[in-house]
Amino acid sequence: MLKFELFKDNGKDPAAGQDRSRLGKITTDHGSIETPIFMPVGTVGSVKGVSREDLDQCGAQIILGNTYHLYLRPGCEVIEPMGGLHKFISWDKPMLTDSGGFQFFSLAKLAKFTDEGVNFQSHIDGSRHFFSPEKAVEIQMTLGSDIMMSLDWCMGHPATEKQTVEALNKTTAWAKRGYEYWRSRGAKNNLFGIVQGGMYKEFRSRSAEQITAIDFPGFAIGGLSVGEPTDIMYEMADHTLPLLPDNKPRYIMGVGTPENLVTLVGMGCDMFDCVMPSRNARNGQLFTRTGTINIPNAKFRLDERPVDENCGCYTCQNYSRAYLRHLYKAKELLSYRLNTIHNLHYYLDLMAKMRHAIKESRFAEFKKEFFAERESRA
Amino acid sequence: MLKFELFKDNGKDPAAGQDRSRLGKITTDHGSIETPIFMPVGTVGSVKGVSREDLDQCGAQIILGNTYHLYLRPGCEVIEPMGGLHKFISWDKPMLTDSGGFQFFSLAKLAKFTDEGVNFQSHIDGSRHFFSPEKAVEIQMTLGSDIMMSLDWCMGHPATEKQTVEALNKTTAWAKRGYEYWRSRGAKNNLFGIVQGGMYKEFRSRSAEQITAIDFPGFAIGGLSVGEPTDIMYEMADHTLPLLPDNKPRYIMGVGTPENLVTLVGMGCDMFDCVMPSRNARNGQLFTRTGTINIPNAKFRLDERPVDENCGCYTCQNYSRAYLRHLYKAKELLSYRLNTIHNLHYYLDLMAKMRHAIKESRFAEFKKEFFAERESRA
Repeated sequence: MLKFELFKDNGKDPAAGQDRSRLGKITTDHGSIETPIFMPVGTVGSVKGVSREDLDQCGAQIILGNTYHLYLRPGCEVIEPMGGLHKFISWDKPMLTDSGGFQFFSLAKLAKFTDEGVNFQSHIDGSRHFFSPEKAVEIQMTLGSDIMMSLDWCMGHPATEKQTVEALNKTTAWAKRGYEYWRSRGAKNNLFGIVQGGMYKEFRSRSAEQITAIDFPGFAIGGLSVGEPTDIMYEMADHTLPLLPDNKPRYIMGVGTPENLVTLVGMGCDMFDCVMPSRNARNGQLFTRTGTINIPNAKFRLDERPVDENCGCYTCQNYSRAYLRHLYKAKELLSYRLNTIHNLHYYLDLMAKMRHAIKESRFAEFKKEFFAERESRA
Repeated sequence: MLKFELFKDNGKDPAAGQDRSRLGKITTDHGSIETPIFMPVGTVGSVKGVSREDLDQCGAQIILGNTYHLYLRPGCEVIEPMGGLHKFISWDKPMLTDSGGFQFFSLAKLAKFTDEGVNFQSHIDGSRHFFSPEKAVEIQMTLGSDIMMSLDWCMGHPATEKQTVEALNKTTAWAKRGYEYWRSRGAKNNLFGIVQGGMYKEFRSRSAEQITAIDFPGFAIGGLSVGEPTDIMYEMADHTLPLLPDNKPRYIMGVGTPENLVTLVGMGCDMFDCVMPSRNARNGQLFTRTGTINIPNAKFRLDERPVDENCGCYTCQNYSRAYLRHLYKAKELLSYRLNTIHNLHYYLDLMAKMRHAIKESRFAEFKKEFFAERESRA
């Protein structure tokens, strides 16, 4: 089982005011993770565009794998005999896998939710498959991730009260079954529960109550960043985070922008994942202290400066905006790698800076400066 | 001007028999190159799929840039103010650029060859351009390559005697003009001449005589690997190489397979370039001691072995055939990089082994073993 140490919890410190940021450490069989942390997404057994060494240099402490994708390709029938996901992809640090719930919502064809589980068709070849809460755990045990996620039903936005309650109820029932299955198997891997409840505070409260009644070693908030305005996402996170146990890691799934991360860390969230840094990199959008830049923009044609003059990443230490623009326009493979290295470094460095600020009891100031710097953008 | 030292020339040693291999060193302003050497192709300012550090680790001593491609994109109007190609792409070792002649044959639309030069349309946007032999040198001086190539007229196979003679004559006339222009500009960059003459020994002889009458610091054989059978390619190389000066580097352009390299080194060739290792890597074809393997093949699905158990490359040291197959099938960007690293390492290691064998006066044995190993392929 994982160990979660909490070194600071401003949510319990009346002197911290609005600041509810936390500083902690999760220790797993594959090493420890400082929180708050961002997890780069390695969908199908590789973080798109970068290598293990690139991830190390960017400061990655844990990566995420997508159970839905890995189950379909290469499949457990490959990953199991190859010794599990860590060995197969040659990654020896912690790994988290999701349950597939989000992909049933976003990607799979014709997903049908029953009491038993989810029937769906592969987005790759249309083949038919079935996930039960037990099977979702079983697959993740085969993958061998350090942190597994309970099967959930993720809704889009908007969703009616009726739809939301149905998804919430199934998510709770599946969480119980997944938990029982996990305990019965005596697995070393950890299993986190997921709170749903759509954009209704009442249902978020109900889901949090039901899910936290199960003794998971950590809890996630799912079903955010599914099309709702940012204000509503913040409102739901702000409402739900305090309903999760203080002494266990809190993870908001699939969020978000740098601004989202800073805001949500301030609300007491410990873990994040998002495809944004890697996906945007492949689309030529690069993060800097003062906002994002679009590297294909003509104004960078003769720009000898690095993407961000204060950035210590491999890309900024070696290459100009002009060269990155050229590589992107010429669709050179190196473009995707250099851009992804920069964006992942930006995200992971932002998390490191937040941890440092929390440690020095100046997170509120950090947050203020962070947003001020972005408002001053050129 | 470059310095060419020849440590061994079996072509001048009667005791060496059929073996005419040579061992040498070319020294340029950006460092030296051990010959015989293979030059990875960095078409448009990046060797597709790999970084500078990857190239270093693979043992690359010099890379090639394509003048036609770089002229069109990003263009001299970017590369010149950015301080030349070396600085722009962050590569500080030697670089060779071709003249564009091969791309007029293979890629450009509606190329029209006149006495003055070549009119052509960009394959990217159809825009019209003109290269004269002087302009080809001027562009390469702007790029700042260590070794520039004279503008030539490359023919396909088959070509009539009349076509071949016309191309040969223009190539000679352009070589003289390019040479005069180069001398008049007092450039530090070196300029090599190119022998043409199609698949006719008589015309190869005539072209070699005319081109070597010009005091270029090195000579290339162009117009091979343009669709002719391998036997004819070998016949032309075997006929032409001895017609080039002993005391200057000899370069066969655009060739070839590992078997080609071993055979042509045995005929006394010093320099090679080819897109084969990098292009084949992106198509999943990997080179090994016993021949090529197609990594998408189902038989590698559960294969825990590296591509080549005796290979010291990063890919073979870290990843299994099963993982490489998965990455390729899933079209992950990492696939292209890992495959390219392996293939380039294979090519550059093969050259290193040949240099070592020549040094130890056992190239003939090396060649025999090399071909025997491939015939024993599983």
